Amino acid sequence: MLPAQEMTRVRLAGREVLVDWADGHNSAFHALWLRDNCDCAECRHASGQRLLDTSRIPADIAPAAVSSGSGRLEIEWANDGHRSTYAVGWLRGHCYAESERAKRRPRPSLWGAELQANLPSATHAAVATDEEALRDWLTAIDRHGFALLRGVPVAPGEVTRVAELFGYVRETNYGRLFDVRAVVNPNNLAYTGLGLGAHTDNPYRDPTPSLQLLHCLSSSTSGGENTVVDGFRVAAALHSANPRGYDLLTRHPVRFRFQDEDTDLTAEFPILALNPLGELVAVHYNNRSPEPFDVPPDEMELFYGAYRHFVTLLESDAFQVRFKLEPGDLFIVDNLRVLHGRTGFSAAGQRHLQGCYADRDSLRSRLAVLNRTHRG
Amino acid sequence: MLPAQEMTRVRLAGREVLVDWADGHNSAFHALWLRDNCDCAECRHASGQRLLDTSRIPADIAPAAVSSGSGRLEIEWANDGHRSTYAVGWLRGHCYAESERAKRRPRPSLWGAELQANLPSATHAAVATDEEALRDWLTAIDRHGFALLRGVPVAPGEVTRVAELFGYVRETNYGRLFDVRAVVNPNNLAYTGLGLGAHTDNPYRDPTPSLQLLHCLSSSTSGGENTVVDGFRVAAALHSANPRGYDLLTRHPVRFRFQDEDTDLTAEFPILALNPLGELVAVHYNNRSPEPFDVPPDEMELFYGAYRHFVTLLESDAFQVRFKLEPGDLFIVDNLRVLHGRTGFSAAGQRHLQGCYADRDSLRSRLAVLNRTHRG
Repeated sequence: MLPAQEMTRVRLAGREVLVDWADGHNSAFHALWLRDNCDCAECRHASGQRLLDTSRIPADIAPAAVSSGSGRLEIEWANDGHRSTYAVGWLRGHCYAESERAKRRPRPSLWGAELQANLPSATHAAVATDEEALRDWLTAIDRHGFALLRGVPVAPGEVTRVAELFGYVRETNYGRLFDVRAVVNPNNLAYTGLGLGAHTDNPYRDPTPSLQLLHCLSSSTSGGENTVVDGFRVAAALHSANPRGYDLLTRHPVRFRFQDEDTDLTAEFPILALNPLGELVAVHYNNRSPEPFDVPPDEMELFYGAYRHFVTLLESDAFQVRFKLEPGDLFIVDNLRVLHGRTGFSAAGQRHLQGCYADRDSLRSRLAVLNRTHRG
Repeated sequence: MLPAQEMTRVRLAGREVLVDWADGHNSAFHALWLRDNCDCAECRHASGQRLLDTSRIPADIAPAAVSSGSGRLEIEWANDGHRSTYAVGWLRGHCYAESERAKRRPRPSLWGAELQANLPSATHAAVATDEEALRDWLTAIDRHGFALLRGVPVAPGEVTRVAELFGYVRETNYGRLFDVRAVVNPNNLAYTGLGLGAHTDNPYRDPTPSLQLLHCLSSSTSGGENTVVDGFRVAAALHSANPRGYDLLTRHPVRFRFQDEDTDLTAEFPILALNPLGELVAVHYNNRSPEPFDVPPDEMELFYGAYRHFVTLLESDAFQVRFKLEPGDLFIVDNLRVLHGRTGFSAAGQRHLQGCYADRDSLRSRLAVLNRTHRG
């Protein structure tokens, strides 16, 4: 939160209301924007939803008068005499000057191998019964895109009950939950004893599940250690070392595909997806499922170079965190940010995980609601 | 499918294999790309998943020899003597020359008010029992982003059973399904008798549900007609009439939010989302839930103009399709493309819909699998 600020001067200049603040910042609020954000009972429903139709605001709307006092700014509108009032803290918090906009953009908290010394984790007994413990665990997931949970009951189906602590299971062709163990005639390399390099799950699915949970029911094989890597951290390293390679991985979609007897899933994403502001918002990478790269001829060799560079960084010791799940351990990853993998494991012994997918929307909603009452 | 083509000449030129085709097209396949797409049993698992680690292909890999015959191209690799063979039809189908790449990009089949004369629809009795009827209905949804289903049993919960004909329900804070009718103290304007302009659902949720189903259980009010609009068609119209406005709506994310006692959902998307190739891939628009626009000061007024232009087109008779659901009718929309709305309805009488969300991944997978056996 920004510290509370006072307005030192308010004046009307054409279609804008100019505000000077005690800390020296200056805001300019456009009449269209101000009228649009009127929160009187006529313009906004008790539910918080907007009643005013933004597109119906007259294009030439202008304030007739502006006044301030008692921590409020008040405007009377020239066209119809409607009055709007704004809390000054709200105005400053939504000022769209470049400097204020930049401050509001989220900056993910990136991590590398140093996270190994301090793995984000909690106990099932705590998060299942104590809202503050749940809030802290969800905060860790939201911040790192990864956390462990210890002491989950060693029973089938518990993984979905953990997802239900904060959200909803995303059912897919793999079921509400899926068993990860070596089987005969696997339809997916996950169901073999092979090692799997760090990857995101289901890049061939749009929308890609944004959370994945894996819960260990048995673990007596040799091998089968898990690895996690912060894909956003690796992307930042690629951007520093090889900006052209980074650019190539953001500009060219890769088509991914999964097929079996009952399923034919396909979707395309760039390995590194940016939003329109150029911020990295998702990583999709899984070496098992790309379709042939469909990149312009003059960039194909460069694209392979960028891909190789990215994967080399993904596999670097500087970025990998390793752990071995014991029965009752569970980990969760933000599947659009943190890649996970495993080492190969022996045929002797048992390694049985159960997994499920869920989505970040409900996790972040639950966290926001917990933070209403448990800010600490 | 492209017509089968024959290779008339094959030769090695540095790191590329050059292929001349009978129709005059020329392909150049890079050694890295060819090696990556080897589908021998060593490089690709029986499940179809890749075993070869793309990132481990030597950067300087080159063919030692190339030969062709019997509809195959064969390469022996200089570094390790590995041999790869490719079906010529596969090669042509994946040629990444610009002309071939452009042909493969999907082009959505856009529609306007003329669809009214020929509403895509099917009967529940057919799609629930006949795979070809199901395939045709799913094809219509995939093509138009909208279809009706008539004769669904008038019973609570049937809407989720329709979703399960091709996929999985996406459970949210609104439940596995939700009741749409006027209630006291609504947490959402959907649950009033107010008219709702054309909108996409849940733009405050990331990932946004990509399919929405609405099923009519009762309809004795006056008013409450439904409207649907092809957002991609409207975006194309905006692009023609006002390219700068179109550009503004693609470049600036809008933050959407929904809050009630138990929920605090927020997500940001541009109104018109492009993929890195500049193709429109999603529309997010709902006038009830945007947060204050956070656009640079010098573009704020222009942004409002673009927004107003887009909504004016959305509401134009040229693009809207209207229908009134009777009990047993259901409609489904691609919620990232087709906007839906309704007119206001009277307090007298009953209007009760049930809705649920699902996702396109499973719909398209089911359609692809049905097309394996029911191509017609």
